[in-house]
Amino acid sequence: MVIVMNPKATEKDISDVTNTLKSLGLGVHVSKGAHVTIIGVIGDKSILADTPLELMSGVDKIVHIMESYKLAGRTFKPESSVIQVKNAPIGGKELAIIAGPCAVESEEQLIKTAQAVKKCGAQFLSGGAYKPRTSPYAFQGLEEDGFKMLAQAREETGLLIVSEVISANSVEIALKYIDVVQIGARNMQNFQLLREVGKAGCPVILKRGLSATIEEWINAAEYIMNEGNYNIIFCERGIRTFETYTRNTLDISAVPVIKQISHLPIIVDPSHGTGKWRLVEPMAMAAIAAGADGLMIEVHHDPKCALSDGPQSITPDNFSHLVQRINKLAPIMDRQYNIVH
Amino acid sequence: MVIVMNPKATEKDISDVTNTLKSLGLGVHVSKGAHVTIIGVIGDKSILADTPLELMSGVDKIVHIMESYKLAGRTFKPESSVIQVKNAPIGGKELAIIAGPCAVESEEQLIKTAQAVKKCGAQFLSGGAYKPRTSPYAFQGLEEDGFKMLAQAREETGLLIVSEVISANSVEIALKYIDVVQIGARNMQNFQLLREVGKAGCPVILKRGLSATIEEWINAAEYIMNEGNYNIIFCERGIRTFETYTRNTLDISAVPVIKQISHLPIIVDPSHGTGKWRLVEPMAMAAIAAGADGLMIEVHHDPKCALSDGPQSITPDNFSHLVQRINKLAPIMDRQYNIVH
Amino acid sequence: MVIVMNPKATEKDISDVTNTLKSLGLGVHVSKGAHVTIIGVIGDKSILADTPLELMSGVDKIVHIMESYKLAGRTFKPESSVIQVKNAPIGGKELAIIAGPCAVESEEQLIKTAQAVKKCGAQFLSGGAYKPRTSPYAFQGLEEDGFKMLAQAREETGLLIVSEVISANSVEIALKYIDVVQIGARNMQNFQLLREVGKAGCPVILKRGLSATIEEWINAAEYIMNEGNYNIIFCERGIRTFETYTRNTLDISAVPVIKQISHLPIIVDPSHGTGKWRLVEPMAMAAIAAGADGLMIEVHHDPKCALSDGPQSITPDNFSHLVQRINKLAPIMDRQYNIVH
Amino acid sequence: MVIVMNPKATEKDISDVTNTLKSLGLGVHVSKGAHVTIIGVIGDKSILADTPLELMSGVDKIVHIMESYKLAGRTFKPESSVIQVKNAPIGGKELAIIAGPCAVESEEQLIKTAQAVKKCGAQFLSGGAYKPRTSPYAFQGLEEDGFKMLAQAREETGLLIVSEVISANSVEIALKYIDVVQIGARNMQNFQLLREVGKAGCPVILKRGLSATIEEWINAAEYIMNEGNYNIIFCERGIRTFETYTRNTLDISAVPVIKQISHLPIIVDPSHGTGKWRLVEPMAMAAIAAGADGLMIEVHHDPKCALSDGPQSITPDNFSHLVQRINKLAPIMDRQYNIVH
Repeated sequence: MVIVMNPKATEKDISDVTNTLKSLGLGVHVSKGAHVTIIGVIGDKSILADTPLELMSGVDKIVHIMESYKLAGRTFKPESSVIQVKNAPIGGKELAIIAGPCAVESEEQLIKTAQAVKKCGAQFLSGGAYKPRTSPYAFQGLEEDGFKMLAQAREETGLLIVSEVISANSVEIALKYIDVVQIGARNMQNFQLLREVGKAGCPVILKRGLSATIEEWINAAEYIMNEGNYNIIFCERGIRTFETYTRNTLDISAVPVIKQISHLPIIVDPSHGTGKWRLVEPMAMAAIAAGADGLMIEVHHDPKCALSDGPQSITPDNFSHLVQRINKLAPIMDRQYNIVH
Repeated sequence: MVIVMNPKATEKDISDVTNTLKSLGLGVHVSKGAHVTIIGVIGDKSILADTPLELMSGVDKIVHIMESYKLAGRTFKPESSVIQVKNAPIGGKELAIIAGPCAVESEEQLIKTAQAVKKCGAQFLSGGAYKPRTSPYAFQGLEEDGFKMLAQAREETGLLIVSEVISANSVEIALKYIDVVQIGARNMQNFQLLREVGKAGCPVILKRGLSATIEEWINAAEYIMNEGNYNIIFCERGIRTFETYTRNTLDISAVPVIKQISHLPIIVDPSHGTGKWRLVEPMAMAAIAAGADGLMIEVHHDPKCALSDGPQSITPDNFSHLVQRINKLAPIMDRQYNIVH
Repeated sequence: MVIVMNPKATEKDISDVTNTLKSLGLGVHVSKGAHVTIIGVIGDKSILADTPLELMSGVDKIVHIMESYKLAGRTFKPESSVIQVKNAPIGGKELAIIAGPCAVESEEQLIKTAQAVKKCGAQFLSGGAYKPRTSPYAFQGLEEDGFKMLAQAREETGLLIVSEVISANSVEIALKYIDVVQIGARNMQNFQLLREVGKAGCPVILKRGLSATIEEWINAAEYIMNEGNYNIIFCERGIRTFETYTRNTLDISAVPVIKQISHLPIIVDPSHGTGKWRLVEPMAMAAIAAGADGLMIEVHHDPKCALSDGPQSITPDNFSHLVQRINKLAPIMDRQYNIVH
Repeated sequence: MVIVMNPKATEKDISDVTNTLKSLGLGVHVSKGAHVTIIGVIGDKSILADTPLELMSGVDKIVHIMESYKLAGRTFKPESSVIQVKNAPIGGKELAIIAGPCAVESEEQLIKTAQAVKKCGAQFLSGGAYKPRTSPYAFQGLEEDGFKMLAQAREETGLLIVSEVISANSVEIALKYIDVVQIGARNMQNFQLLREVGKAGCPVILKRGLSATIEEWINAAEYIMNEGNYNIIFCERGIRTFETYTRNTLDISAVPVIKQISHLPIIVDPSHGTGKWRLVEPMAMAAIAAGADGLMIEVHHDPKCALSDGPQSITPDNFSHLVQRINKLAPIMDRQYNIVH
């Protein structure tokens, strides 16, 4: 951390700041420039989290030098993490493919879709039991019954189950039925929920918030890790920009950035990221080519009848086409993906 | 709602769409243009919420003509609403001033600040009991004890109390102590929480999400109103843009826009909206000059020692200066504000 | 400027960097922290403009401490500048009101509007002679004939003339007829044009680019000042964000920010900033209440027949209403505005 | 085009609008809904470009149904265009690789880099002769001398030459020396310049503006095509968003979107799009995997000494690594790329 003093700061202003820092046990380095003095701070800056140094007399601004996270960063853990979900690793050589309907609607719908994605080599089935929707007049999810159907689909197909949680209560219920809990984009900074899944210890897919910087996103992971749960997979799903042709702007560059500054795996959701089923396949290809560890894709056996997000869902046939292309791309990326298990 | 058909849509595509609409009890108007056919839909479009017409053969896109909300819009309730919080109205002739520390830290801190803002004519005291923070290493709030201190401050000053709720559980506790619950920006689309405060029936300050359009914001109010609670006050607090000099970009134009399309009151929070205390006063003036019904301002008797958001808090002296200027501005806006009650 | 070294930087990396800096005549301050070493650079950093230090071995990033502009900043010129346009000052006690049609269409249209705004106390008439338009199929301006009509309107009304220039050639022509040249938002970083108006020496209204940060905007002024022309007036006219209800998001907070960090005056254009005539008056009020030195407003005697930007133009009657409210607001801001000259 | 009337519009309002449309020779379809009346407009809407219907009494808003461009869209030209630059096609089966330094600095620098990229199979050499820079204190380009050096490099290597033009004058000079002119992001809506390159008839690379929607970008191409020049190649180079870790957010989804709605080719510039050389290779891979027709990449034989944009330039060795990976990816995309010509 560097404290930049105002050009008009007095000697007393400078010594007040350095004395405050020293009294907290921090080291200081004062550097007087042609116009301004800067003060480097040495030591554990977390003890400054609640001290607004910006308000001290003569201080112009605070510049953070080190990243604001530790556990999620590569600085202190250089090797990549592989998150083990039962027999399926995420973040290793094998690409992880998660697929399923946006919302669990019925047993029949779920099983049909599950069998279709299983046949294409997906290792994970996703489906929403809690469906918070923008309009209060739309379908809101089957809740616990949805989790039960997902567990039933696992029995029948062997697919591991991913589903969103939206509150402490839903985490508790989810853990009885599913394998990976997902934190949705709108809850990325629901810090109470982050702590709950942190305590739960289960694998977590952490979607990026619509207006979250990469640094804020990693800090959300830090919240979970701070409770002792290191089983986190990032999921890029689009950010909000001025462009309206696509529902969101899928930030593919987040993939190599996360790979460089964090040791955690990252997957990409091209369905929510684009909002248009015709864009799902090219953006899935782009994600893997950029280095993503996997994909999360909405598949519905009959998108025209989907109760939620039909326009961004692809059919089982489209999904089959997509994974065949991913299958060809994988070896070029030093990855593997087995269409037939 | 207008359905735009593809230039290559066949007669059968068009009749399939019109038949689907008719079977749902909706009226249709088909208009054949030089290049494309468009289909106007007449009747209650909410029955289409779960039907992805975009996926029907030959359909190019859906264009929504009417706004997506009803209860919160001016179309069906042209006169402005005044929300009555005990003896204090919000949305009428009198400007509503809400002030207090970002976080409740201690009885002493709270009472000192409460007395200072009371002396300046504020009718409401705000203070956070639950403080979700970006970093897991920062102060997180006193929770129920914070509410108790706020209720105690009401006893001593007569100020009405505003505080944030973050979960169903916190709503229940809050209602024992406070007068107005606040939904924070990060929870604007926490639909479960919206329904909880909808059922609670108490006055609600609904902050705009960092990346929420005005239409999404009004739809969040619609969620609350749909549960029967019409006591909603919008609060503009800045949106996320590419500009980084200010913490957020305070969208002052949201004030006249909300006034034109909704009957609900709107206040402005220039503290979070700018993140810099030096900008609070000019932006408070701008908000009132644009037609806002009130302000929400962070005041701390000693910002340098604030445990949360010190850099955007102003001192009681600065607050006194601000309200004196607001007091002069009010009559020009056909408003009133009484510094001495 | 602070150079942050990588945690793995070697002693040699550090000495390579410091030696490079010293060889350029710069001073260095090395500060070794617990995890990283930072190097403060002392002296004139402009000699580093073409040296990509980020690429030296062991360098993690460069953090800029000082603002990137000099001539336009308050650090080296603390008192506010008043730009004198003949007998009309901009940036002093008197508010500057610039009004007129988006495009000059005909003598009759221009004179009618000029007389109307003159009667309301405006000191400046604006009108576009060059009208770059998004669609190639729309009206593109009368070019030199437009300037001639503007000069003619000055003869008849005494109003000073503001008009946009779009190229070196148009600057040369403009200077024969008009008083203030305007750089449009799309040309804010047309550096060749900035240099041309810099050499011309005339007063310049510099509109903010749609996606320009405040710092980039001030740097654009720096380009002009670097050629010796200090007669610059900033004009905030809205930035591009995700919100689509308004044409742009008028960033009113840019007003107090510019006032704090630059000595140059700033005015606001609520017509382009909102794109909707109903929002022009409330946002004009907000701009002045935030401290703006003036306004730039589109007025057309018959907006329904305007060849350009009709929906954001107000009528002379609406303009008269607006300036009467500004007239009441002015004394509260320690400003003055004379409706009758 | 659909005109949405206000719920309070009278019969006279409606007939005024329909009569206006009919008087212009347009067809109308009136559709009365439960709450509002909508009017469909049939015929050539370009004759409405200068008629602000929004301002007619009773009109609520105008909704555009058809895209705003014609020549650049797939609707009227369904097959993809291949732009022929001498012997090198862009938009066909062969991937087009454009590489070179950000700025032409000297003959030696240029030839070294040219030979290096030639050896890797690039068909095009790029290099800036005009270098508009954010700071007035940085290197601004060699202008005509730069073009001469580029032409010299073509002599020695056979590479075709791409370079930016920034004004009518620079277009005229450029055409004497180079093969493809580039319109930079900041000039995407410099309509005068667009018309100049339209008249010139030469192949044009049209970079996307930092805050340009895809529709505005296609309309910029429409400007050029409207002058008779159809030889346009789009180049995605990143848009401005709230994310600051990368210099811009490279919008890879623009690739499949342009492919779907326009017949023109699209290439991607991952150097400017990310601003960080470590991200260039993964984003180049992502671009091709998403369906791009080529790449534009900054290569400098010694980035540490580059006078412009060093941090985003890659070395010849990195470039060689990149094209080898692209070479492997090409067949999966049904493309080809020949490292050895």
